[in-house]
Amino acid sequence: MAGETGDGNKHIETNSAMSPKYKLTYFDLRGLAEPLRFLLAYGDIEYEDSRFTFEQWPEMKKSMPFGKVPVLEVDGQALHQSMAMTRYFAKQLKLTGDDDWEAMLCDIMVDTMNDFRMQVTGYYYEPNEETKEKKKEVLFNETMPFYLERLDEEVKKNDGHFVKGKLTWADLAIVAMIDFMEDQLQTKFTDNYSNLKAIKEKVLDLPQIKAWVERRPKTNY
Amino acid sequence: MAGETGDGNKHIETNSAMSPKYKLTYFDLRGLAEPLRFLLAYGDIEYEDSRFTFEQWPEMKKSMPFGKVPVLEVDGQALHQSMAMTRYFAKQLKLTGDDDWEAMLCDIMVDTMNDFRMQVTGYYYEPNEETKEKKKEVLFNETMPFYLERLDEEVKKNDGHFVKGKLTWADLAIVAMIDFMEDQLQTKFTDNYSNLKAIKEKVLDLPQIKAWVERRPKTNY
Repeated sequence: MAGETGDGNKHIETNSAMSPKYKLTYFDLRGLAEPLRFLLAYGDIEYEDSRFTFEQWPEMKKSMPFGKVPVLEVDGQALHQSMAMTRYFAKQLKLTGDDDWEAMLCDIMVDTMNDFRMQVTGYYYEPNEETKEKKKEVLFNETMPFYLERLDEEVKKNDGHFVKGKLTWADLAIVAMIDFMEDQLQTKFTDNYSNLKAIKEKVLDLPQIKAWVERRPKTNY
Repeated sequence: MAGETGDGNKHIETNSAMSPKYKLTYFDLRGLAEPLRFLLAYGDIEYEDSRFTFEQWPEMKKSMPFGKVPVLEVDGQALHQSMAMTRYFAKQLKLTGDDDWEAMLCDIMVDTMNDFRMQVTGYYYEPNEETKEKKKEVLFNETMPFYLERLDEEVKKNDGHFVKGKLTWADLAIVAMIDFMEDQLQTKFTDNYSNLKAIKEKVLDLPQIKAWVERRPKTNY
């Protein structure tokens, strides 16, 4: 089954003494769940990758904490807020840098990418066609170059990574976001930014990520 | 000077060996800077509380990393993303719970409150009067009760705090947000939610927070 991977022998600390049972619930999309899926893949952590349709959502929504997904059930306890959960697994997998300072630098990069993502989402889901056209112009001509230039510069000055020349969850989470946003916008927007393109390729070439990308369900974004 | 407080003898670990020099730059508002200011006040951490006017912003914006504030300079290095920085100080002050799991629970609560804050911000800064009126209706009749009921329930089931019956940065950061959002919306929206009202009062009654609230510049929100 998609998402059920690995040998499950990694001990992930939780409030449960034994290796917990994970179930991730989200749309049949990469989207907000994909950074977490990247971390779970990287750590060979077994989970049930439960996907629902847009038609099912209004009913599903009622049972979700704070009405949002992705939701991760850990031994039946439903957690939400994807970045908080992704950070938790990053800590278990020693992907938050060498100290609290570097952990903060990871958070800064992830939150910055998330700000950018929200601009893309605001355009993508805009229901009014006229407003959407205006948003598209601002997004493509202003927002995207603004963020991409600066993110590219961060990778350049951090020796090919987002934080201090080493692999952190910032690399994994941001590349997971780039990966779905490029499909959402139907443009490989990192192609003109050599440092971003390089870290994207580096992450997608990690054996566990490569294997996940190959076996994951094919979705529009 | 407002914001320069405490004896500065607490050692906060950073990349600098000596106690670093902090300068916080933001509008003359509580807003997004206030959770960080609450943490700094709680820790008796000295900093320069630099505030600028709306008129100065277009020019200031150009020199800010990713064009946003609050920015915290640490020995001259400009950091952004307020929640990432607030979490960093929370760690130094042992306010992230007892383990990684509780740290995640803090993050979940803070991110949830931040989602709610963004809905309020989306209404508050809506330039079109007609659209704003519609947003107000949704905000007051749907969004606010939705979030407030659930946040109130979290405090109830966590014995008077947001996480596991103990003081964490989730309490401080969320109350800092409630504090300015209530003034922004000109309604004490926690008054009808006894558990939220109680944690608000508890945090505002902490000696260091009480002292900060008394001496901070008076602002609309």
